[in-house]
Amino acid sequence: MAGSDCLPVPGVRLGVAAAGIRAAGREDLVLVELAEGSAVAACFTRNAFCAAPVRVAREHLRRAPPRYLLINSGNANAGLGERGMADARRCCELLARRCGVAPESVLPFSTGVIGEPLPVERIAAALPAARSSLAAARWPDAARGMMTTDTRPKVCSRRFAAAGARYTVTGMAKGAGMLRPDMATMLAFLATDAAVPGEPLRRIWRDAVERSFNRVTVDGDTSSNDAALLIATGQSPAPPIEGERSAACRALAGAVRSVALQLAQELARDAEGGTKFVAVRVAGGRDSRECLAVAYTIAHSPLVKTALFAGDPNWGRLLAAVGRAPLRALDMERVSLRINDVLVAERGERAPDYSEAEGAAAMRAAELAIEVDLGRGAAAETVWTADLSCDYVRINAEYRT
Amino acid sequence: MAGSDCLPVPGVRLGVAAAGIRAAGREDLVLVELAEGSAVAACFTRNAFCAAPVRVAREHLRRAPPRYLLINSGNANAGLGERGMADARRCCELLARRCGVAPESVLPFSTGVIGEPLPVERIAAALPAARSSLAAARWPDAARGMMTTDTRPKVCSRRFAAAGARYTVTGMAKGAGMLRPDMATMLAFLATDAAVPGEPLRRIWRDAVERSFNRVTVDGDTSSNDAALLIATGQSPAPPIEGERSAACRALAGAVRSVALQLAQELARDAEGGTKFVAVRVAGGRDSRECLAVAYTIAHSPLVKTALFAGDPNWGRLLAAVGRAPLRALDMERVSLRINDVLVAERGERAPDYSEAEGAAAMRAAELAIEVDLGRGAAAETVWTADLSCDYVRINAEYRT
Repeated sequence: MAGSDCLPVPGVRLGVAAAGIRAAGREDLVLVELAEGSAVAACFTRNAFCAAPVRVAREHLRRAPPRYLLINSGNANAGLGERGMADARRCCELLARRCGVAPESVLPFSTGVIGEPLPVERIAAALPAARSSLAAARWPDAARGMMTTDTRPKVCSRRFAAAGARYTVTGMAKGAGMLRPDMATMLAFLATDAAVPGEPLRRIWRDAVERSFNRVTVDGDTSSNDAALLIATGQSPAPPIEGERSAACRALAGAVRSVALQLAQELARDAEGGTKFVAVRVAGGRDSRECLAVAYTIAHSPLVKTALFAGDPNWGRLLAAVGRAPLRALDMERVSLRINDVLVAERGERAPDYSEAEGAAAMRAAELAIEVDLGRGAAAETVWTADLSCDYVRINAEYRT
Repeated sequence: MAGSDCLPVPGVRLGVAAAGIRAAGREDLVLVELAEGSAVAACFTRNAFCAAPVRVAREHLRRAPPRYLLINSGNANAGLGERGMADARRCCELLARRCGVAPESVLPFSTGVIGEPLPVERIAAALPAARSSLAAARWPDAARGMMTTDTRPKVCSRRFAAAGARYTVTGMAKGAGMLRPDMATMLAFLATDAAVPGEPLRRIWRDAVERSFNRVTVDGDTSSNDAALLIATGQSPAPPIEGERSAACRALAGAVRSVALQLAQELARDAEGGTKFVAVRVAGGRDSRECLAVAYTIAHSPLVKTALFAGDPNWGRLLAAVGRAPLRALDMERVSLRINDVLVAERGERAPDYSEAEGAAAMRAAELAIEVDLGRGAAAETVWTADLSCDYVRINAEYRT
C-alpha cells in the first residue's frame, strides 16, 4: 500500500464546469465518466427527509449499470417535492442524450442549500464544458467542484497488489458540517480499476463505510443528500477479484477501507469552524454498541465541544457525558479517562497524580485523543469529531444570508 | 390560581450568607428551614456520574424527615470520590449540631464547578450568618444565592383554594446550561403549606417534574447534581389533603404543575447565550414517545439552533432534523411545519403559498413556536429550548478560565 498521492484510475474520467448554480465563476458542476462494465456499490442517507437526487439515483441504480455521475454543489435539490424529482430526472436526460446512453445510466448527486429550485437550464448549458474537460487526472478538480463549506478538497489513493497484479483505489469526498454517521451532507466517490462482481463489492463497501464515514460526527445532524459510492471499473488487465475470503479480496477491502478512513478523517479535520481534530476512543465496553453510545454522547456534547475549543481539560464534563450515555447499570467507579495519554480520571474521580497544568498542556495539541475505559468488557470503538467554536455558530448562522 | 408574586409559605424560612466559595462577597450559601412534620418528595439526576451531595441527600431522605436544606453554588462537589462524600456529610453535621437536629435531617445540594474540593471550613464559618438571616420572605434572595451562570433569579407562586381553605405553592429554581430532561444542572425547590401525605405528594411531584423540568433542554447535557424537591409543610390550619382523586388533591397538583412549568420555562428563557425562547410542539404522532423523540431531535440540532440564532427560517434543517429522528417508517409526505403560525412546509416540502419574507418576519419574534405535525396519530408533546449563539460558546469555553 503506497502513499496518498492522487492516482488516476483506469476507466474513470472526471470533468468540471462553472454552471453558476449559486455563485458565478465557481466550478460547481462535476461529471464522472465510468467505463462500460463498471460495477457500483452505493450507500445513501437514512434520513427520511431524502432529497430528489438520492431518490432518482436509487431508482436508476436498480434499472441500469451507471455510466455517468452528475454532481452539483450549491443546491441540494431537496424539499421541492415533484418539481425536485422532475428536475433531477431532466438533468439526467439532458446528459444522457448528449452522451448517447440511457437516462437510467446517469446518477445525479446534489449538495448545498435545501429548498431552492435546481437551475436546470444553467446546468444544461454547462454540460458541454464539463464533458469536454473529462480527463483521468482531474480527481482534485472534481473534489474541489463538490465543495460547499469545505475549506479544501479531499482526495487520496492507495495501491495494492494481489495475485501478482497491481491495482489502484482513489477516492474523493466533501462535507464539513451537518455531518454525522449514516451519511451527512457528505458525498464520497471511490474507484478501483479492479474487476469485482457486485456482491463482494457491496459487502466491502458497506463494511468500509461503517468503519469510516459512519464513525465521523461534527454536529450530529444528518442531511437529505448523502451518498457514498464505490466503483470497480474492471479496466485492470488482471483477472477479476473473486472469492470473499481470497487474499486479493482482502487486499482490496483493506485498500478501500484505508482510503475511506483517510477521507472520513479529512472531513472531521475540515469541520466547520473546527480548531481541533479529536478521536474519541471508548474501550472496556460490553459490546461495540455501548462503546459507540458513549463515544457519540461525548462527541455530540456541546459542553465537551466548547471545552475542547477552549483547550480546557474539563474532565467533569467528559465524565458527565459518559454518565448520561444510555447504558444500563454503568458503574462510574470503574471508569477511567485519558487525554493524549495523560491519565486524568480513574475510578470515576480525578486521578491522584493528575494536575490541571498537565491536562492543559495535553489539550494544547491540535490533535486530541480522548480515551475512556468503561472497565466492564473487551469491546472498543473510535469516532472522530471536532470542537465547537464561535466560527461554527457564525458559519451556520450566516449560511443562507 | 392567582398571579406569580412570590408569596411566603408558612413553615418555610430561608436564609443566605456569603461563604466565599468561588468568589468573595457573593451570597453563595442558602439555608432552607422546614417546619417539623413537613413531607418531602424528591427527584434526582439520572446521570450515572452523580455528585456526592446527591448521594448523601438520597441516603438522608431514607433515614429521617428533612428539617434543613443546605445549598451552595460555586462548587458542585462532584468527581471527588470519598473526599466529596465526607465533605458533604461534614457540612450536614456542622449545621445539624448548630440547629439541634440529627445530621440525617439535613439535605445537602451543590451546584457549580466539578472536581474542586468543597471549601468546608468557609461554609462552616458562614452557617451562623445564614441561620440568623432566616425569614419567610427570602425566596428571591435564596433563588439568587443558588445561581451559577443564570442571569436572574427564578421564583414564582400560585394560590389555590380547596374544600373552603386557601393554600400557597411557591418555588425557586436555578439552571441555565448543561440543561436537559432528567434534571440538568438544575435545582428546584417548591413548597406548599398544605398537609399532604408522602405518597400522593410523590405522585404529584413526579408528574409535575415530568411535564415541566423534564421538557426543557438547552444543550442536551445533564449534570451530576440535579435535584428537584416538593415540600409540604402542613402548616395550613386546613385539614390534610387526601384522596388521590379528590378535588383538593387535583387543585394542589394543578398549582404545583403550574409553578413547576413557569420555573422550567424561565430556565429556558435564561439559557446560556440564548436570544430566543422556543417551544417545539410535535403533534400527529402515534404516541407521546415518538413526539418527544422528534421534538428533542429538533431542540438538540446545532444546525437548527444556529438558524434560530440567525433568525433564518431554514425549514430544510428543521425537516432534516424531523427526518433523522429515530422513528419507524416516517412518511415525510404527511409532515407539515409551522413557525409562529406561518405554514412553512406541508407534505414534506415548501408550502405553495409560503414566502421567505413571511418566514423571516415570523423568526424575528423573541418567542418562537415551532409546530410539526407528523400526520400519523393523535399524540402531541411540547419541549422548550433556546437557540445556540456565539455567546453560548463563549460562556462555556470560558467557564473555568
